[in-house]
This record gives sequence, C-alpha cells and structure tokens, in this order.
Amino acid sequence: MKLQFTKMQGLGNDFMVIDGVNQQVRLSTSTIRQLGDRYFGIGFDQLLLVEPASRADIDFSYRIFNNDGGEVEQCGNGARCFARFVHDKGLSLKKEIAVETARGVIYPRLEDDGNVSVNMGVPQFAPQEIPFIADSDLIIHPLDIDGVSFAISVVSMGNPHAVQVVADVDVAPVASIGPKIETHPRFPAKVNAGFMQIISRDEIRLRVFERAAGETLACGTGACAAVVAGIRRGLLNPRVRVHTHGGELTIAWAGGSAAVWMTGPAVSVFDGTINLQGEEYAA
Amino acid sequence: MKLQFTKMQGLGNDFMVIDGVNQQVRLSTSTIRQLGDRYFGIGFDQLLLVEPASRADIDFSYRIFNNDGGEVEQCGNGARCFARFVHDKGLSLKKEIAVETARGVIYPRLEDDGNVSVNMGVPQFAPQEIPFIADSDLIIHPLDIDGVSFAISVVSMGNPHAVQVVADVDVAPVASIGPKIETHPRFPAKVNAGFMQIISRDEIRLRVFERAAGETLACGTGACAAVVAGIRRGLLNPRVRVHTHGGELTIAWAGGSAAVWMTGPAVSVFDGTINLQGEEYAA
Repeated sequence: MKLQFTKMQGLGNDFMVIDGVNQQVRLSTSTIRQLGDRYFGIGFDQLLLVEPASRADIDFSYRIFNNDGGEVEQCGNGARCFARFVHDKGLSLKKEIAVETARGVIYPRLEDDGNVSVNMGVPQFAPQEIPFIADSDLIIHPLDIDGVSFAISVVSMGNPHAVQVVADVDVAPVASIGPKIETHPRFPAKVNAGFMQIISRDEIRLRVFERAAGETLACGTGACAAVVAGIRRGLLNPRVRVHTHGGELTIAWAGGSAAVWMTGPAVSVFDGTINLQGEEYAA
Repeated sequence: MKLQFTKMQGLGNDFMVIDGVNQQVRLSTSTIRQLGDRYFGIGFDQLLLVEPASRADIDFSYRIFNNDGGEVEQCGNGARCFARFVHDKGLSLKKEIAVETARGVIYPRLEDDGNVSVNMGVPQFAPQEIPFIADSDLIIHPLDIDGVSFAISVVSMGNPHAVQVVADVDVAPVASIGPKIETHPRFPAKVNAGFMQIISRDEIRLRVFERAAGETLACGTGACAAVVAGIRRGLLNPRVRVHTHGGELTIAWAGGSAAVWMTGPAVSVFDGTINLQGEEYAA
C-alpha cells in the first residue's frame, strides 16, 4: 500500500507531484498537511496532483494544494513542473500539453533546452479586475504609504500585483514596505508587491513580497506582472530575462490583449514512495 | 546511476539515511550541501551513512554529516534511526546492534513497542571535561549573565550542556538567555543551554538552545543532560519521561558511573531514489 511521488522544483518553488492517472489518490486536508511538513513528512510548497482529463480534447487535469491543505488556483512554477513530469514519466509524448486547471485550460510547452514555457493568460489592468480602488486605469498609480507616495503599476495575472521600479533590488525595502502594500486598504483582496530593478530593456532583477507568504525565492506570476508593467511604462522590450533569488525566467508579452508567456526551468529532484495509512488512496 | 535512501525522523530531527553496505557511496561536501537543501534537494538536518564495520565483532559503522557538509560526532536521534533502518531494511536481524561511531562503539536496542533505546555513555561533570572554567565540581554552579546569577548544572554527554530549572518552559527566556549561555566566556568550547520544568519526580518538560543551531524541536543529549542534572540535584527519579516540542523521550540513569539510556521513537517517512552526477557514488 504505497503512494509513489516525484519531488520537483522550479526556481526553488518545490512540489510533491503525484501521478493520479495510474494511482487512485484521495488525500484529506490533514494528510496533505502531514506530507507537507519538512521534518515529519516530505516537505513542499505545493502538492500537485495529475489526474485524467474530463474531456477528450484535453490531455490531463491537475489540482494544486498548498502545504496547509488548501487548494489553490494557479501557479506558473507548478505548471512547468507538471509538463516536465508527464513527459518524463511517459504519461504523454506531446511537446505541448493541454491541461485543465481550476482557472481553465493551459498549454505548457516543452522547449528543446529542457525549459518549459507556459501561457500565463492575458494581463488585466482595470482597477475592478485587480481588485484595486481607483477612479481610472492608469499605467502608474500613486499609492500613499505612511505619507509617502509610491509609483505603482497594478496588474492582474489571475492574481493581483502591485509593481514598482527600484534602483537596486538588493537594498529595496521589501520586508518593510512589502507588507504595507500587501495589506493596503486600496487592495480589497490584498496584493503581491513586486520590486523591479531595470538592468536593460531586455533584463530585470526582481523581488516579490507574496500575499500571505512573504518574500519567496521566485514568483512566476510576479515576474509576468513586472515585465508587463515595465513594457507598459515603455521601459522594456517584449521579451525580458528576469533574475530572481531562485533563478532565471524569460517573460514574453506582445502587448494589448496578447497572452504572457513564461519560460523557465522545471527539475525532477528525486522519486519517492511513502506508505499512507487508512482509506486515503488505493493503487 | 541511482542512489537509494530513506528519509527518517526521530522527534522531528530528520535524516537522509543511506545504505553504504550495498551501495558504494562517496559524497563530496558540496553534494551533501545540495542534498540537504529543503527546496532544491532532499532536505535534512543530518545525513546518516551506514557502512560495513572495520572489525568482526562489530555489526556496522556509521558517519553523520550536518546539512552544511561537516561531519559530526554523536547524535542520539540519529542512533535510533540507524537501528530502525538496519532492522527494517533487513541488514541485521539483531535486536541489539553494535555500531562504531566517531566516538566509539554504541549498542542501540530495538524495543518491542517500536521505540529504540540507545546507550548514551557515562555523563561527566568535572569542569575540565565540559570544558567549563570553575574551581571545583559543584552540582549547581552560579553563572553570571548581565549581573544576574543563574543556577546551572554542567554535564558532558560527549558534548557540553548547561542545564537550569525553570518554573514554566513555555515562558522561559530560551531565545534571549540561551545565546548568552551558549557563548559565555566560562565555556571555552561553547555550550548547549537546557531549560527544564519539573512536572513530577518522573516527568519533565524541556527546551534546549543548541550550540550553533539555536532552539531545536528536541535534543537527545540535552534530554540526557537535563535528567542527569535533575537526579544529581535530588529532584528526579532514575527513570524520567521528557516532553519536548518534537515528542517524548524516556531517559534512565542509575547514577554514578552508570551509562545514561535514552528511549524514543525512530520513524521511516519515505523511501527515495535520486540521480547523482559525476563520480560521487557507484552502485
């Protein structure tokens, strides 16, 4: 009575990935929490469960759970690991895979260099889409924090982002200002706060204070939001390398209603087998 | 070219355990560091490498490495996991296993309830054995910190401990006083600082600020040192249950030059396989 899994990571965002096509898997919230513990369990940021698709024109479905057991909607690093996983495990021979997620169908694509590209959807800027309390859709909004005005761009990549340009990300006030932006009353659903340093029109450095998580090694949707904001401000070309603490991503956006594409690494770290007790799964 | 391992834990102190009897394993410091990373690797407090013994009257040898790649001498939680591992993997059918460590031969013993008992050696109290700067061997030494005198007992369990009795471990100043004891000039090799609450003559609660590690979920030698100190002070019986944040241990000491025995859990969490590159191992 064993559950097989693969531990993967993309830019240091790490996943327990489970083949739910060849194994029947039902995991309770408390089991996911136990598995997610880095000392008493396997340890991961998210659990990624690959399942059969519900329609013939789709290859797979997948679900993502945080290590607190809660289900989450979208994760660019997870989508890359998903594509690498179904390819490496022989579940699909396709280079471009159609997968249903809680937010709709996405099409991750395996590149020849081993990286994976993911269509991250069309960015939204209208205040009500973020959601953000503002009278109009500006490229730069002033945001008041403790009497100081910050120049932010708001972007929804399915989740809300507030991006600002800084001179040097190494000394940017991510820990002090990040939480104040995250919980600013003009963001009713809170917001991810990005701090971007422009190196050239083709290259940025980025740190993101993530909603409910704090600063992380790398935030896929945050990289998309930062590049989109930089392009809208006229500072960046349509294809930009993004350096984060966890590694490097390439973000491409043709502007307007085009989708954003994110390309980056997805790495299998090890394969594992764990005994689960009770009725939570059956092979 | 795959390396097989088992992830184990004892009181939340977690180990990557490798069978170096049936696999030939040579790991560089940088490889151990990579494996020890909880996001990019497997993640563990220590790596435990089981090897053939060098003598016929001994069953095994083992080495322990911290996740920074440095080799360490002794670890009670590791010894329990070692014994469970060689038994569960069928490397030995014995209940009591003779194993060479960097500090000599130890004899971990599998109990019928699944716990493992480990002979932790004979405690030493002489100041030069700790090492501790003092004129005589007292059961309680006054230790001055910022003009306040703390009543500590010093014990060597192969590593140095300074134990004090507190009224309530939940509010004990572990984070503030712990590092000041650890680095006190009277401990030339630094010291582990234990904070023990006496519940009864048979039961204590314990928190330990570990040398170079800070507060941990559970410290095996710290539990031994605390019980020994409590017995010497006349507060405890010879067999004591110790509650830590990571779980429960039983410590037994008959006094004098008797060895201390520690009994506690050792749990296999999962089995794994990882590809290592280069010349670091061969199956």
